[in-house]
Amino acid sequence: MKLPEKVKIFEVGPRDGFQKVEKFIPTAVKIEIIDQLSGTGLTKIEATSFVHPRVIPQTRDAEEVLAGIQRRPGVIYSALVPNVKGAERALSAGADEINAVVSVSETYNRKNVNMSVAESLQNIAAVIALAREYGRKTVVSLANSFGCPFEGEIPEERVLEVARQVLDLGAGGLVVADTTGLAGPLQVRRLVGRIEEIWPGLDLTLHFHDTRGLGLANVYAALEEGADQFDCSIAGLGGSPAAPYASGNVCTEDVAFLLKRLEIESGLDLPVLLEISRKVEEVVGFTVPGRLVKAGLR
Amino acid sequence: MKLPEKVKIFEVGPRDGFQKVEKFIPTAVKIEIIDQLSGTGLTKIEATSFVHPRVIPQTRDAEEVLAGIQRRPGVIYSALVPNVKGAERALSAGADEINAVVSVSETYNRKNVNMSVAESLQNIAAVIALAREYGRKTVVSLANSFGCPFEGEIPEERVLEVARQVLDLGAGGLVVADTTGLAGPLQVRRLVGRIEEIWPGLDLTLHFHDTRGLGLANVYAALEEGADQFDCSIAGLGGSPAAPYASGNVCTEDVAFLLKRLEIESGLDLPVLLEISRKVEEVVGFTVPGRLVKAGLR
Repeated sequence: MKLPEKVKIFEVGPRDGFQKVEKFIPTAVKIEIIDQLSGTGLTKIEATSFVHPRVIPQTRDAEEVLAGIQRRPGVIYSALVPNVKGAERALSAGADEINAVVSVSETYNRKNVNMSVAESLQNIAAVIALAREYGRKTVVSLANSFGCPFEGEIPEERVLEVARQVLDLGAGGLVVADTTGLAGPLQVRRLVGRIEEIWPGLDLTLHFHDTRGLGLANVYAALEEGADQFDCSIAGLGGSPAAPYASGNVCTEDVAFLLKRLEIESGLDLPVLLEISRKVEEVVGFTVPGRLVKAGLR
Repeated sequence: MKLPEKVKIFEVGPRDGFQKVEKFIPTAVKIEIIDQLSGTGLTKIEATSFVHPRVIPQTRDAEEVLAGIQRRPGVIYSALVPNVKGAERALSAGADEINAVVSVSETYNRKNVNMSVAESLQNIAAVIALAREYGRKTVVSLANSFGCPFEGEIPEERVLEVARQVLDLGAGGLVVADTTGLAGPLQVRRLVGRIEEIWPGLDLTLHFHDTRGLGLANVYAALEEGADQFDCSIAGLGGSPAAPYASGNVCTEDVAFLLKRLEIESGLDLPVLLEISRKVEEVVGFTVPGRLVKAGLR
């Protein structure tokens, strides 16, 4: 066990969470929530995505969101981009950091973006180059790193191979993602252990979904290997719009509670996160997956 | 890490889960669900409670439930009892095993059963003696072992002290319970480690609630200390009736999925558990807290 003393939590709710909510969340509400989140100790917020509005209409207001928020010093406002065109939009709109995605599963990547993994990597190379022109970092998410709904188990070596390619292209950090909630703690410990062994000091973030209930067990397992950066989503949003009660990303405030119980410093203001989570529940109009928001701290 | 090779899952949904559902679940439905559960590899089912019907009307049919179920060889059908009178009813009705409860928190125990811990222990001594006359074992649950909503943190020594008293009275096993979902993984590892050190070979069960989202992380932490018996509830029922979407006990099928991902043998039939969970959701009439039942295995 080598639990870290400090952990950074990155908020992905405004992107990974809100994009899954069926109704369009008004731009002003998104901005208000991002501005509240930026005051809770979160050090990075994925504010929106620059995927084409035809594909994800929920983030058709990406430029307006980035223009409307109050930039809080010390907080990185990142944006997800699918390609160079999206990256151009994001960088012009003032995104501090770019998140580009490739799946380590060939089948998933083709189904998701209609490209081979190799094509996606070329794409990412161009995104990284463009971001550099703007003096911005690109972090690359490795989707399905712990299993694929189509291919099943993904060999660890495959994840490491794509990670190496992405780092060779100049990525400034990696997000190892359990896109559909298939990871288990042993697998997490093994993969995180390997990555830290191969690339000590790497800007590594773990991104778990609680789709099958193992989200926080996986966060704990990653912490045991010393991982200290996690993507989380306020209220646990991120489930499929077809199943609004199904849980999505690991829930920001639940992870903050885990860290508190583990005596790990996160710098997060838990009571304020709970207030925001309650507000998010009102905004989306359905019961959110987060646990703590229903029970309270005591 | 000393993950066990095999783990036993005990089902408490028919008692801890159903008692929290506002409407009365028809006796025939309870019996049908218990009979389905007994075919999934679960080795113990807490079938009902013999608390006075004025206090918990949901289990006013305790005798009928025990009389109506089909006893499957190898499955222990236990019942919760609050006192000797309840134990008499349970033993006459054919309960295989008795579950008696005492809180390690003086305040909680008084609020819950209007007795001091010392009085509850006297009570339990009488229950154990009576059960012995019937040749039956009494397992004692130590409520609030990981924290109390009134007293806050509970010192580990306090839990160990009550555990010792209970074992001195002749309890056949201990259930260490996180009654209101306050436990964290470090605390779990410490307490489980201490108990196993002091009483190696003890019939020890961990009973976690997922009230604040840490349920499965706590199960994983206990497994890391070698714990191999867990109370779980089908569909994750057990939340307060005042907050039907708030989660209760750790969810049987989600824990079964965790064990599967950890390559630990549980003997559980996961697809059948999912079928039963879906049925339970229909019966209770609200969205249950379990995750896997919404997402499916893939």
